[in-house]
Amino acid sequence: MKKASICTIGDEILIGQIVDTNSSHISRALGSLGIRVVRMISIGDVREEIISTLDNELKTNDIVIATGGLGPTKDDITKDALAELSGAGGYIKNEEQEAIVHRILKSRGLDILDINLRQAMVPDSCEVIPNRMGTAPIMVFRFPEERYGHPATLFSLPGVPYEALGALPDILNDIEGHYKLDGITHRTIMTYGLAESALSKLIEPWETSLPADMHLAYLPNQITGVRLRLSVYGGDKQEALKRIDERIEALKPLLGDNIYAYSDSSLQAEIKELMCSRGLTLSVAESCTGGEIAHLLTTVPGASGYFLGSVTSYAIPVKEKVLAVPDSAISENGVVSSQVAAAMAEGVRRLTGSDYAVSTTGLAGPGGDDRNPEGTVWIGVSGPRGTKTFTYRYRNDRLRNIERFAATSLDTLRRFVLSDIND
Amino acid sequence: MKKASICTIGDEILIGQIVDTNSSHISRALGSLGIRVVRMISIGDVREEIISTLDNELKTNDIVIATGGLGPTKDDITKDALAELSGAGGYIKNEEQEAIVHRILKSRGLDILDINLRQAMVPDSCEVIPNRMGTAPIMVFRFPEERYGHPATLFSLPGVPYEALGALPDILNDIEGHYKLDGITHRTIMTYGLAESALSKLIEPWETSLPADMHLAYLPNQITGVRLRLSVYGGDKQEALKRIDERIEALKPLLGDNIYAYSDSSLQAEIKELMCSRGLTLSVAESCTGGEIAHLLTTVPGASGYFLGSVTSYAIPVKEKVLAVPDSAISENGVVSSQVAAAMAEGVRRLTGSDYAVSTTGLAGPGGDDRNPEGTVWIGVSGPRGTKTFTYRYRNDRLRNIERFAATSLDTLRRFVLSDIND
Repeated sequence: MKKASICTIGDEILIGQIVDTNSSHISRALGSLGIRVVRMISIGDVREEIISTLDNELKTNDIVIATGGLGPTKDDITKDALAELSGAGGYIKNEEQEAIVHRILKSRGLDILDINLRQAMVPDSCEVIPNRMGTAPIMVFRFPEERYGHPATLFSLPGVPYEALGALPDILNDIEGHYKLDGITHRTIMTYGLAESALSKLIEPWETSLPADMHLAYLPNQITGVRLRLSVYGGDKQEALKRIDERIEALKPLLGDNIYAYSDSSLQAEIKELMCSRGLTLSVAESCTGGEIAHLLTTVPGASGYFLGSVTSYAIPVKEKVLAVPDSAISENGVVSSQVAAAMAEGVRRLTGSDYAVSTTGLAGPGGDDRNPEGTVWIGVSGPRGTKTFTYRYRNDRLRNIERFAATSLDTLRRFVLSDIND
Repeated sequence: MKKASICTIGDEILIGQIVDTNSSHISRALGSLGIRVVRMISIGDVREEIISTLDNELKTNDIVIATGGLGPTKDDITKDALAELSGAGGYIKNEEQEAIVHRILKSRGLDILDINLRQAMVPDSCEVIPNRMGTAPIMVFRFPEERYGHPATLFSLPGVPYEALGALPDILNDIEGHYKLDGITHRTIMTYGLAESALSKLIEPWETSLPADMHLAYLPNQITGVRLRLSVYGGDKQEALKRIDERIEALKPLLGDNIYAYSDSSLQAEIKELMCSRGLTLSVAESCTGGEIAHLLTTVPGASGYFLGSVTSYAIPVKEKVLAVPDSAISENGVVSSQVAAAMAEGVRRLTGSDYAVSTTGLAGPGGDDRNPEGTVWIGVSGPRGTKTFTYRYRNDRLRNIERFAATSLDTLRRFVLSDIND
């Protein structure tokens, strides 16, 4: 299996001014070719550091992808470092890139300065892939087996994300043209409702029985739950898929409806499918989650196909006036109670005329009250067959509690609608 | 100046499934102590790789911060690697962390399994900082000068972002307690309403006139706007603060009310202060932002002191029925229009009886309509002195557009309330 390393060059990432998003895109792209990324490194605009780091990575990897440090200004010195690393005899002009520089600056109504034209000059030791989205060319340095004990390729990409990602298809084509690749085959299983530790305990016998060439990864997330990724490297893709699917079949009875999808997905995306495919509509009444449930639902394009709307009744009068929560329910049980959660769900369902509704009332913190400790939430779900409530307790900070409350509400709704359908 | 390296451990970053956001937070935190981060590295859950990488980084750095690989499951092997690297004699139980493990699992209604308790076991070669937000302890390994030619400290943090960031204050305290630091003095100025490039052009003369030892950093963010950080390394802290404040005074007239705070803050935190300090109340009517505005407002503790509630009227009937938007406003002008934005803000203000209200109607994408291109938003603000509307256009993907719509709505509300107050 081919190995790769990704190096981002530039002080702005090192000092934490910007987050490096290029590396994860590049890694996923390489992964789709079955190339394993073994290291990601961020270094500053320091010539010696750039040379020694890239030289080191080329020793142990087939492919090294460097991004950044190609701007026109003085502090960008990656190109000189690459010239030295690759033993270039000098610089030559790349006509194609120069034409692009002229076109881009003209389109921006800018004068063409020497420092701009210098961007089209490249070390004579590299091949050039034109960068149509920016002024800095994409450089490809191919090192013969003698240099590092194996054929190695170094790609230099601009750091600007849309230029770097724009270059990826050309990079992948170049790699496929020069390397014999064994693919990777994997499936993702989305689960919600079990903590990572409980999940791994539950499936331990199944996990230990996996063949040696099959790898399981746990990828936990506050909002999507624990994502399981089952991978096989190399071999025949169809055969590998068949073997993975057999294992997933054996996994299903162990996890039951804790599994909500068999591909990369989210609770809100699955709810949209569930509702839209059956022409069902949804409304939401939020208190402690303060709009996060509606926000998550509406991050999915096409949410308007089933999501009618929501009421965030943060103040008690809004609960009573807009959602018609009886003040007796509040005075007798408190705002954070099963009765209020139920009344909120029924209230917003009445108000909007939706088929289903979900509601939350709880204490995200800081601080709880005499009845309920911090992190307590009551969730109400209401539909054609009636209303149910559930309570959970989490022990995170305010923001994480809000996220968990919202995610668990989506999961509760999902299970509630499914149980209606499967009846 | 002390040097540091940040290493993230875990396959999920390497395969590009998640983006590493911890490193930039940690880097900024270390920067605030005047510690320079010279490398960030991501590696997988491979024992030898973890040991050799950390060993290498400790050779050239005073401080190495490792995050991740501390989960309870089989694929997390960082702790064993650290035990070997530090020459531990064995594992010992950390009572304090074990108590936390019990408390957290109990509060989540989970059984306490051996693999959970194993998380409280640490190599006898480390000191422990209890992790109150999760089950994995924070481990501190101190290497004497003989080992690497300089005293070196290795911190091992959980990879879960809110646990890693939650541990940062303790880490910074530990570093300040064990190292003599040059110290750094800085102030943060929060701005909204100007893009980074426009901002830098506007303040260029001011910026070029800064003394050589004063550094300006631009820290742009979708939701908080552009954060300006003015820093001075070393020297007397009081003196440095005085000099920084003089420069900030000169900056004020250039930026006017694009500045919304003079310390790390957020639009929602400033709005809370603005409203609560004057006993004002707020309600929100959302369409395209789908709950994000209410969510942002309620991420601030004490939001219930002024925020009454919100209506997310995603479907037209909900706009008409709940917010009493006249259907003529919709039929004559379309849903994405000044008239509908105004009617939504006035409607929710009437419904909740709040002093102020803000509303959004727009197209986050994908796709626009015949009247409005993708990324168009109309924002309505309504208060005791009347109603105003504003329109903006952004060119991001759906999620970014929703964030920008919401942030700009908060900024529009802030300016609207301030203009009332300052009249």
